[in-house]
Amino acid sequence: MNAEIIAIGSEMLSGERLDTNSLYLTAELNRLGIEVVTKCVIGDDRERLAAQVRQSIGRSAIVILSGGLGPTEDDVTRDAVALALDRKLSYDREIGEWLEQRFAAAKRKMAEVNKRQAFVIQGAQILSNDRGTAPGQWLEESGAVCVLLPGPPHELKAMFERHCLPRIARIAPKQVIRTLFLRVAGMGESDLDQLIAPVYKKYENPVTTILAAAGDIQIHLRARCETEAEADALLAEVGGPIELLLGDRIYSRNGDPLHTVVGQMLQLAGATVSVAESATGGMLGERFTSVPGSSAYFVGGFITYTNEMKVELLGVPPETLAQFGAVSKETAEAMAQGARRRTRSTYALSITGAAGPDPGDQNVPKGTMIVGLSDGAGTISMQRQFLGDRQRLRTFTAQLALDVLRRRISGLL
Amino acid sequence: MNAEIIAIGSEMLSGERLDTNSLYLTAELNRLGIEVVTKCVIGDDRERLAAQVRQSIGRSAIVILSGGLGPTEDDVTRDAVALALDRKLSYDREIGEWLEQRFAAAKRKMAEVNKRQAFVIQGAQILSNDRGTAPGQWLEESGAVCVLLPGPPHELKAMFERHCLPRIARIAPKQVIRTLFLRVAGMGESDLDQLIAPVYKKYENPVTTILAAAGDIQIHLRARCETEAEADALLAEVGGPIELLLGDRIYSRNGDPLHTVVGQMLQLAGATVSVAESATGGMLGERFTSVPGSSAYFVGGFITYTNEMKVELLGVPPETLAQFGAVSKETAEAMAQGARRRTRSTYALSITGAAGPDPGDQNVPKGTMIVGLSDGAGTISMQRQFLGDRQRLRTFTAQLALDVLRRRISGLL
Repeated sequence: MNAEIIAIGSEMLSGERLDTNSLYLTAELNRLGIEVVTKCVIGDDRERLAAQVRQSIGRSAIVILSGGLGPTEDDVTRDAVALALDRKLSYDREIGEWLEQRFAAAKRKMAEVNKRQAFVIQGAQILSNDRGTAPGQWLEESGAVCVLLPGPPHELKAMFERHCLPRIARIAPKQVIRTLFLRVAGMGESDLDQLIAPVYKKYENPVTTILAAAGDIQIHLRARCETEAEADALLAEVGGPIELLLGDRIYSRNGDPLHTVVGQMLQLAGATVSVAESATGGMLGERFTSVPGSSAYFVGGFITYTNEMKVELLGVPPETLAQFGAVSKETAEAMAQGARRRTRSTYALSITGAAGPDPGDQNVPKGTMIVGLSDGAGTISMQRQFLGDRQRLRTFTAQLALDVLRRRISGLL
Repeated sequence: MNAEIIAIGSEMLSGERLDTNSLYLTAELNRLGIEVVTKCVIGDDRERLAAQVRQSIGRSAIVILSGGLGPTEDDVTRDAVALALDRKLSYDREIGEWLEQRFAAAKRKMAEVNKRQAFVIQGAQILSNDRGTAPGQWLEESGAVCVLLPGPPHELKAMFERHCLPRIARIAPKQVIRTLFLRVAGMGESDLDQLIAPVYKKYENPVTTILAAAGDIQIHLRARCETEAEADALLAEVGGPIELLLGDRIYSRNGDPLHTVVGQMLQLAGATVSVAESATGGMLGERFTSVPGSSAYFVGGFITYTNEMKVELLGVPPETLAQFGAVSKETAEAMAQGARRRTRSTYALSITGAAGPDPGDQNVPKGTMIVGLSDGAGTISMQRQFLGDRQRLRTFTAQLALDVLRRRISGLL
């Protein structure tokens, strides 16, 4: 069963904005076993939109439109769909009264133009909108379904979930979709793909998707079958060997990002962590504290961007800086020790590195990034040479620091 | 003159990936005065793509396709366009040899499938690819132009810039586009729009676009005229009153983000800054240090997530915390003073606040965020009540801190 998504709005035909509703809609439709075969963006143009709707309904079972249901002249969706299906558009008194009540409740006078939102296409079922003034419409035409949804994402999602998903589930082919979700740290995308492609390439079902960010790779395996047992067996057949190949590089099986996983490990261990950041300037602390409740294990830290601050705030010996330089394992380790000593945390992580724009020298070229870790058992450090722009180098390194701590807590380091 | 953009690739019909090439292409086409009226994403399906190409060429002067030029069976663009235009596809020996040389230079054997990339649609001009193996193609058909570009963004951009922009500029209507670009801090989107809409709503040219992020609003005015003088006059006519209304809330006229602007101001003043972050956990330091060369003015700082750390690392008096609480102007000011004293920076910024998930209490509800600033002239603080989730509250507050410093350096505070 195929679907098409049409986003309406000239603002999404600028160089700045993308239609993102289609991501949500696609994910939901896929879950029901429905493929999205085309999506498009049309400006506020009645004839052009009508032509697209006619074409889409002629070839796909489900056509979902988002946007263009507002009260102004620019909002052409109702008119365009009525035109495409050659149906009448008429004022619905009930919606009109509901709109007037909404405005009255907000102590505002309803403008005459808002009446446009009470127009319904002949034969449509109304989809009520809890979060805005534009009702949706559900239409059926020669075996196909055409749904009009409002553009604002929170209105669209609420309406789709409440009114459309149950209706679509009834007409969708009966099948089960199960997903295996892995997150992996400490590997490049091409190395990972080379390792696991021989396994997943043999299968069209499950579908394997690999999404790579700096130091963080997500692997999705989606199996579609007639029964749960079949889907689970298929995921085990393909996912099992992949999990074996990746081993302890897998840090999450539920989608949680690395800072959340490490936070949970710290909390379970009753341990705390502090940071000492040079090149990342606060990025690691920001990641730890992006998790609600992180005060249970994150105590704080130091941003020591200059050598002077490394000496004064962390007690890094000036001789260490003089002899080995700011970007050295010795400095990283002294930073971690200093942070741990001054915050009395269980673990302290440090980061130093050459993030550019300075190309660096032969010993410390741009991209040399070092992570230090200090705890009751001692102090270790890890040096890497990363590629990329400043922000990418920093992101790689914050991720590496989190992974070093994960491995330490897990007894892998 | 109208254009359409067609992105080819089933991966862009998943719930995870969007086509972003179209943003770049739209911005470039707009600059030449060409409107993008429709864009769509088609999977790796020859017939469906051919139907779309036929339709688009029938109604728009320029049709740009991206993706589907690789060597595999999935890469259907060449075939689909040949089918749509009813033209032959034939092997081009010159491209074939160029491909073989490329592989030889990389000491790899060219696989037989790669020959597919040497097939050219009858009548096409070849667009060479400096960054990959897929050449582009430029076709003309009954007054319309159809361009085939590779999907990887860096290949597409290089090819479009080098081969397509000059060709399109020759056929584009003669006109000049000038843009006025403002960035504004310290205002909500609806307040800003209410203030300036009476000015810009009267004009269809320039086109005004407002993009809002947490505490950061971008306003673009784009004027299209026959001459530069006309465009500049029009921008002055509309932009002048808008600039007057927004006054010193405008912080950038060249697109630079606030942390870059503040960094430039610090550097010009020969001043330095340090930070003391509680609720933002390093976000402010991360923003300062995201700018290459920020070590000229950013010395470092403290992440003091617990009360204990506020006392120990910053010297906040325990009585202040006991009497006023961690989220208070008194604590924020003591934090800024402590950071300045311990780093000897010209300015110190502090942040404390209730970012949730705890709903807080009556005195300090969730969303209460406080910024402190200390310098040679004294210490000030600013309290705000923001709305949103944890990350949005933190983003708002880091932006507020930067804006407080901007105003202080400018003598507005």
